[in-house]
Amino acid sequence: MISIAEIQHKIDFKTKPLGALGDLESLALQICRVQNTLSPQLIEPLIVVFAADHGIANEGVSAYPQDVTWQMVLNFLNGGAAINVFANQHQIKVKIVDTGVNKDFENIEQLISCKVNYGTINFLNQKALTINELVQCFENGRGVVKNHLASNNTNIIGFGEMGIGNTSSAAMLMHCLTDIPLKNCIGRGSGLNDAQYLQKQSILTQALNFHKNIDKHNILDVLQTFGGFEIATIVAAIQESYDNNLLILVDGFISTVSFLVAYKLNPKVIDNAIFCHQSHEGGHALLLQYLNTKPILNLNMRLGEGSACALAYPLVKSACDFMNNMASFESASVSNKEKS
Amino acid sequence: MISIAEIQHKIDFKTKPLGALGDLESLALQICRVQNTLSPQLIEPLIVVFAADHGIANEGVSAYPQDVTWQMVLNFLNGGAAINVFANQHQIKVKIVDTGVNKDFENIEQLISCKVNYGTINFLNQKALTINELVQCFENGRGVVKNHLASNNTNIIGFGEMGIGNTSSAAMLMHCLTDIPLKNCIGRGSGLNDAQYLQKQSILTQALNFHKNIDKHNILDVLQTFGGFEIATIVAAIQESYDNNLLILVDGFISTVSFLVAYKLNPKVIDNAIFCHQSHEGGHALLLQYLNTKPILNLNMRLGEGSACALAYPLVKSACDFMNNMASFESASVSNKEKS
Repeated sequence: MISIAEIQHKIDFKTKPLGALGDLESLALQICRVQNTLSPQLIEPLIVVFAADHGIANEGVSAYPQDVTWQMVLNFLNGGAAINVFANQHQIKVKIVDTGVNKDFENIEQLISCKVNYGTINFLNQKALTINELVQCFENGRGVVKNHLASNNTNIIGFGEMGIGNTSSAAMLMHCLTDIPLKNCIGRGSGLNDAQYLQKQSILTQALNFHKNIDKHNILDVLQTFGGFEIATIVAAIQESYDNNLLILVDGFISTVSFLVAYKLNPKVIDNAIFCHQSHEGGHALLLQYLNTKPILNLNMRLGEGSACALAYPLVKSACDFMNNMASFESASVSNKEKS
Repeated sequence: MISIAEIQHKIDFKTKPLGALGDLESLALQICRVQNTLSPQLIEPLIVVFAADHGIANEGVSAYPQDVTWQMVLNFLNGGAAINVFANQHQIKVKIVDTGVNKDFENIEQLISCKVNYGTINFLNQKALTINELVQCFENGRGVVKNHLASNNTNIIGFGEMGIGNTSSAAMLMHCLTDIPLKNCIGRGSGLNDAQYLQKQSILTQALNFHKNIDKHNILDVLQTFGGFEIATIVAAIQESYDNNLLILVDGFISTVSFLVAYKLNPKVIDNAIFCHQSHEGGHALLLQYLNTKPILNLNMRLGEGSACALAYPLVKSACDFMNNMASFESASVSNKEKS
């Protein structure tokens, strides 16, 4: 086992002032620890985008109609979305998974079908998922990662999502699992105006009130009550990725909430997690703070889709590259003697 | 002339919620305006690293000996420094310029010689540059960019620097040109301990006191008094880049101070400037605030060399790529109707 001291020694003897590469140095340290090496490598990077619809979307909590979910799935498959553009830029493979979109896609070959239902139940006065659906999502999430790894050497994977209404689901989960006041977990999602934002707050407060007897320490019950198919599937995909010792790229608000659920089930997953971006979405900054982490980027984005995983990827690679390719003080004959 | 409205219309009709790409959208808008196009392109990116020595380094203001300047120049030429690694990663060409290093390099072919002297004069009780040296730096800075453009189609250029002691020079320039209190302009550079930091503050306060009658509105006199050869050369290189309508990547603290001088001489240069990183170096955050700009990255780095230009470059490219390659609501048949 490579020790932290050995990794830190290699970092410190690169030709730069001590600590001058800042967050890239802590990132390099983390990756070396996960990979148990002094020569970290990123292999066949993959981003998986999970799509689903949400019953709560019927309550006017989103600025866009539910049809946008399936329309965006087709856009992903046609290569026209932001995630396609940014993943192409960095030669990252993208896979799209239907976890429960309210549309039949009729055997589109590139679309991975893990459809559990045509959208979740409206959690305003019922649980969003049945227990069978939750179990199915968990199997699916692990299955998607397993199937990919069966024929690829991928050692870094990012998870994105698409689902009209899913910031509502994520806000409820965040509140229940962190005890941060609900109003601080609710943002404007895809761009609510003031009236719509108040409506979203009102609906989610009603939902919380209906489910007020929920045991917040029962993670799976919280997930079943307020979750989405894509969120539950990502939770399991994160678990499977961790079990295979992959590096896990965490995208924006929804993905970080999915990560939070996985983290509550097994805190060790954070060892492999790389937080890519602090979203503009209300709640995300607080959630990252709760997880005691500083993300790589802070670009005021609020898109999801795994877009921030793709955008942060080159910086993750830079952390590996400097470890492998930068000269040391010794190899470059540069003075490392501090003046007295 | 393409109007802002036309550019904004193209951004807004990409398949994403309005504004969801955050800072990448403002970056795209800026690049389109500079290039007067709806289809921005980055061509043959270049980073030029200017190296020089500083007389003030004899006063114990740096944690490293002056020899590190020339040793790092050789490291750059051998491809072993951070800037080499990050520039290679993104296929960015790097050129190294000796503007006044305290060493004879004996006709190394890849090194561009613009040597003005063997380091500046110690500004503790004299002006750092003679007027002839300042003029020479200005000619050199323009010349380096002109010569490059004579045989390359480069439309984006970044400027880095290397020079033991140059955070002292930069702090003095920042103070004089912004009126921000000197102590807020002074950082720990390459990593001063508390005692060394106090020494640096004391020396720079003495220097300011010696030059207390300086006319702070006389930009060139301020530059001549406290500047470095690399800083003055970068000022002119920025001017020449602006005159050729290049995009200008601004690196860390020293480069931003160089930009500040160019900006004071011609405020229009800011139209073409892309601020790459907020450095950990004390003063940089305040300087970026003074310039009313938010940089792309904030990674706690404090390295210089143009390293942040290279690291931010893929995000600048992402801003272009989404403009060129993302589908519009219309082309992808995605609903853009907000719900009532």
